Amino acid sequence: MSTLSVFMDVPLAHKLEGSLLKTYKQDDYPNKMFLAYRVCMTNEGHPWVSLVVQKTRLQISQDPSLNYEYLPTMGLKSFIQASLALLLGKNSQAIVENRVGGVHTVGDSGAFQLGVQFLRTWHKDARIVYIISSQKELHGLIFQDVGFTVYEYSIWDPKKLCMDPDILLNVVEQIPHGCVLVMGNIIDCKLTPSGWAKLMSMIKSKQIFPFFDIPCQGLYTSDLEEDTRILQYFVSQGFEFFCSQSLSKNFGIYDEGVGILVVVAVNNQQLLCVLSQLEGLAQALWLNPPNTGARIITSILCNPALLGEWKQSLKEVVENIMLTKEKVKEKLRLLGTPGSWGHITEQSGTHGYLGLNSQQVEYLVRKKHIYIPKNGQINFSCINANNINYITEGISEAVLLTEGSEMCLPKEKKP
Amino acid sequence: MSTLSVFMDVPLAHKLEGSLLKTYKQDDYPNKMFLAYRVCMTNEGHPWVSLVVQKTRLQISQDPSLNYEYLPTMGLKSFIQASLALLLGKNSQAIVENRVGGVHTVGDSGAFQLGVQFLRTWHKDARIVYIISSQKELHGLIFQDVGFTVYEYSIWDPKKLCMDPDILLNVVEQIPHGCVLVMGNIIDCKLTPSGWAKLMSMIKSKQIFPFFDIPCQGLYTSDLEEDTRILQYFVSQGFEFFCSQSLSKNFGIYDEGVGILVVVAVNNQQLLCVLSQLEGLAQALWLNPPNTGARIITSILCNPALLGEWKQSLKEVVENIMLTKEKVKEKLRLLGTPGSWGHITEQSGTHGYLGLNSQQVEYLVRKKHIYIPKNGQINFSCINANNINYITEGISEAVLLTEGSEMCLPKEKKP
Repeated sequence: MSTLSVFMDVPLAHKLEGSLLKTYKQDDYPNKMFLAYRVCMTNEGHPWVSLVVQKTRLQISQDPSLNYEYLPTMGLKSFIQASLALLLGKNSQAIVENRVGGVHTVGDSGAFQLGVQFLRTWHKDARIVYIISSQKELHGLIFQDVGFTVYEYSIWDPKKLCMDPDILLNVVEQIPHGCVLVMGNIIDCKLTPSGWAKLMSMIKSKQIFPFFDIPCQGLYTSDLEEDTRILQYFVSQGFEFFCSQSLSKNFGIYDEGVGILVVVAVNNQQLLCVLSQLEGLAQALWLNPPNTGARIITSILCNPALLGEWKQSLKEVVENIMLTKEKVKEKLRLLGTPGSWGHITEQSGTHGYLGLNSQQVEYLVRKKHIYIPKNGQINFSCINANNINYITEGISEAVLLTEGSEMCLPKEKKP
Repeated sequence: MSTLSVFMDVPLAHKLEGSLLKTYKQDDYPNKMFLAYRVCMTNEGHPWVSLVVQKTRLQISQDPSLNYEYLPTMGLKSFIQASLALLLGKNSQAIVENRVGGVHTVGDSGAFQLGVQFLRTWHKDARIVYIISSQKELHGLIFQDVGFTVYEYSIWDPKKLCMDPDILLNVVEQIPHGCVLVMGNIIDCKLTPSGWAKLMSMIKSKQIFPFFDIPCQGLYTSDLEEDTRILQYFVSQGFEFFCSQSLSKNFGIYDEGVGILVVVAVNNQQLLCVLSQLEGLAQALWLNPPNTGARIITSILCNPALLGEWKQSLKEVVENIMLTKEKVKEKLRLLGTPGSWGHITEQSGTHGYLGLNSQQVEYLVRKKHIYIPKNGQINFSCINANNINYITEGISEAVLLTEGSEMCLPKEKKP
């Protein structure tokens, strides 16, 4: 009897796991270090969890009044409301005018998946997306799968060692009409008021659809409002947009899929139409989003005492990261490392550019087993008392040994 | 300045929520009843939760050794292993031969979404799917979205009042070569050994790809092995197939997305290839599945004492449903309702056909506010001491008032 095997001709897929992490895992060197984790790490080298989360988790599991029924497809209503108020501010014009809503998604990948499926159906002309380089690996694939051409951009100037507003304006000037632009937090990109005006005006006139990615509000400056200033600009200018809001990293609930696809529309009627279409898409994707993480976060956001504890925990984390950056800078200076290292402490958040060229990065990876992405952007919370000396000495060595070659050689000119 | 509104032309989507539930919700009648919930209900009218789940949830939240890091894209390994052993039996040929695996998904919709995406890419010839009618509303949309033509089938004979093996064989005989066949549990369909042989042979020779849907193992007969007998047949015959395994309903963890897309291949090499492709797809869908529910279930399945408690709780639920069915049958007899009602107790599980025609169902919905799907298949766990008299009297009335018209008129011949 003939048999069909659907599986017979299926090839082994290439692992999409970043090749850096793969190489790191395969490395047998005992003191190897990985400085590119996505999440905030503790001094002990574990993913950070806000203490108030543990307490709330226990309280919830002891509450006999709770039920464990399926959530509606749109998710936990109170979670969405509290999270939107957190993201945009309680008094946001969009909230007051009832033109912002959200769908509770399985993490930020789920939010992008849902948003991209919507764009495929309702924004058929857009077939090009520009993604900020740090997020390209994570979210680019989702756009690519539905037929988008994906380009990445960076606003880091490796010569000036800063996030350059001119580069940002240049990028937006050059990208084609009608495409999708995925933007992260650009808090370190010091746009002047006229720079902001120019940015807004270009996005409007070129009919670019903004898709924001806010993966860790509160972990940049510890000021929750400051961290989402960019959204407030866009809201005040009457833009419609999507935003992926993740609450995994700023609460330390990594394993529960606590994301929201935020929709800001120009009026309530359009919002309801968009949400109704998203509901249909979410029904096919997972039907009901997971509850535990959303329930914990809602309990915290809606209780002033717990909210205070959470904010305090963010403050401590951010202060700790700043302290680490100060120490790295200071140690590099004490080691007599050529170059200026002020850019390290001028950047906000867990992740920042070291300002190394590709030769120096390669030296650190190959010779010192310190795993750093090619662009030199690392997670500073991976540096702690146990490894700071080894890391700064490694950096110093890398810079000294490659001295003479330009500090931040563009890749194209690699000798 | 011209503004593009992507949202402007987006229409309001039709609610996909079953129109029956919608009508029920809009009904103001105080004694309205809904007998078509998806999940097993308690006598008090709440979704059932196994007591051992609550206990385990509390234990887990007090365990300081646990971390809350992102799960791998494939999910919690121990959860998948324990669930596969539950589904197929520890000594299953496929497990021993290392040719079965699974991906932890966000519920059964997630499992279907993932499986369908795979089939779209790797089984390009298949563009037709046959889905058992009770699951069409839930899963049909997912196939439809990627371009499948969806047909439904039923194996319930409204005249003989049973799941008819001949109908099943007929369906499979008539469906076209190379399509996908979504099958549920056919435990009440009494296939003879030669019937089984014929079924297998047709599926093989017509190169039909089987996609099983096992939404509530243990809630049919309370015998976990008996409830998945159909899978064991297919494994023993060397088939490759997909199976959506949901653990929401049999543990009472509805809000956590505890599903698995099970892959049975003909050998380990093909299995690994298929799993690697599924990993890529899951990465784009949600990247990391939710943990809490999987963690609770794994703790129960891997601890003999807890496992015993869970099995006992299943036994009690199933006995309770059988008792309800007995009572319904008995009350209908005492009320002198015309017709034979033995088919009610001859069906396994929470859901079963009442054996009413469309006129009778319409009478119950319109006149008695008892909401029943058109095919007369209800969730018997929705019947309890508080509503059984009203329901059975309603059924009796419906049958008496429509007497003379044929008991189970096919829809086409509706007068």
